[in-house]
Amino acid sequence: MPAPALRELGAADRAPIAALLRATGAFTEEEVGVALELVDVALERLAVEGSYRIVRSDDYNFLVADAPDGAHGARVAGYVCWGLAPMSDGVFDVYWIAVDPAAQRQGIGARLLHAVEEDVARRGGRTILIETGGKDSYAPTRRFYERAGYAEAARIPDFFRVGDDKVIFMRRVTRSGP
Amino acid sequence: MPAPALRELGAADRAPIAALLRATGAFTEEEVGVALELVDVALERLAVEGSYRIVRSDDYNFLVADAPDGAHGARVAGYVCWGLAPMSDGVFDVYWIAVDPAAQRQGIGARLLHAVEEDVARRGGRTILIETGGKDSYAPTRRFYERAGYAEAARIPDFFRVGDDKVIFMRRVTRSGP
Repeated sequence: MPAPALRELGAADRAPIAALLRATGAFTEEEVGVALELVDVALERLAVEGSYRIVRSDDYNFLVADAPDGAHGARVAGYVCWGLAPMSDGVFDVYWIAVDPAAQRQGIGARLLHAVEEDVARRGGRTILIETGGKDSYAPTRRFYERAGYAEAARIPDFFRVGDDKVIFMRRVTRSGP
Repeated sequence: MPAPALRELGAADRAPIAALLRATGAFTEEEVGVALELVDVALERLAVEGSYRIVRSDDYNFLVADAPDGAHGARVAGYVCWGLAPMSDGVFDVYWIAVDPAAQRQGIGARLLHAVEEDVARRGGRTILIETGGKDSYAPTRRFYERAGYAEAARIPDFFRVGDDKVIFMRRVTRSGP
């Protein structure tokens, strides 16, 4: 069975994305909240409460991967969110990438990341950055990035918590096409 | 003449801050715009246009230094903006620090930075990060941070532009007294 194509984000994806972020066990509730805030920015439906800051919704690009078999009670198997890094002229940040644990080891994360690389190349971007955690439980995530061609470029010790560094992975992008 | 005390940000500071940011010659218009956006968040008067993202205005702390002699046509000689880094439990970012060129070499930048360090220590913070540029024209800025006890912790090559790295300076903060 061929894997379904990646597709644009829709309003119906918000709840499944929240569920899969929690299912990974990799994110705190604060982190899930930040991830969903970007979903809401992209869907342009964020409610205004108190003070706020303008961002352009085109700062945040999304792609969604559906589960090939529609199983596991969620049609969303994974998603990625990326955009041009503020104040950079060609560096893109992958802000969030997550795959439902029930749909992992099927190449969905690699497909999502590859789609980002193609998009960044199309936009004339030079570099992709991905920030992740340095603690032991994130070792599979870091190996995933390394297999995908990313290398550790920088590390902020004890960033998330004491003993949990911020690790910044980087990959140069080759300009595509004619 | 003793230097005046640092003080809170007020609405009347917006125009002088814009003027001093431009006077430094260190920032692009895009960067000045981002800096003023944070001023507007702190003043809770940002206009809503299109899509937007909620931030708490207490994510951004400000201190302002007045010119000792009120000269140079601007009563604001410098300012600093800092806050808890998103998703960290004790790392603070100095987002912006700038001193009017006409008021430099008087220790105003060092006083602003020292006030941030005291505040971070009071809040139980562990670490302060400051991002700056790696190009030659920023060498005096990097030396300023080094003299203030910050060391380069990480570097993202070609971040701002090809040949202009992002350099992340770091200083550990000692918890202050009871």
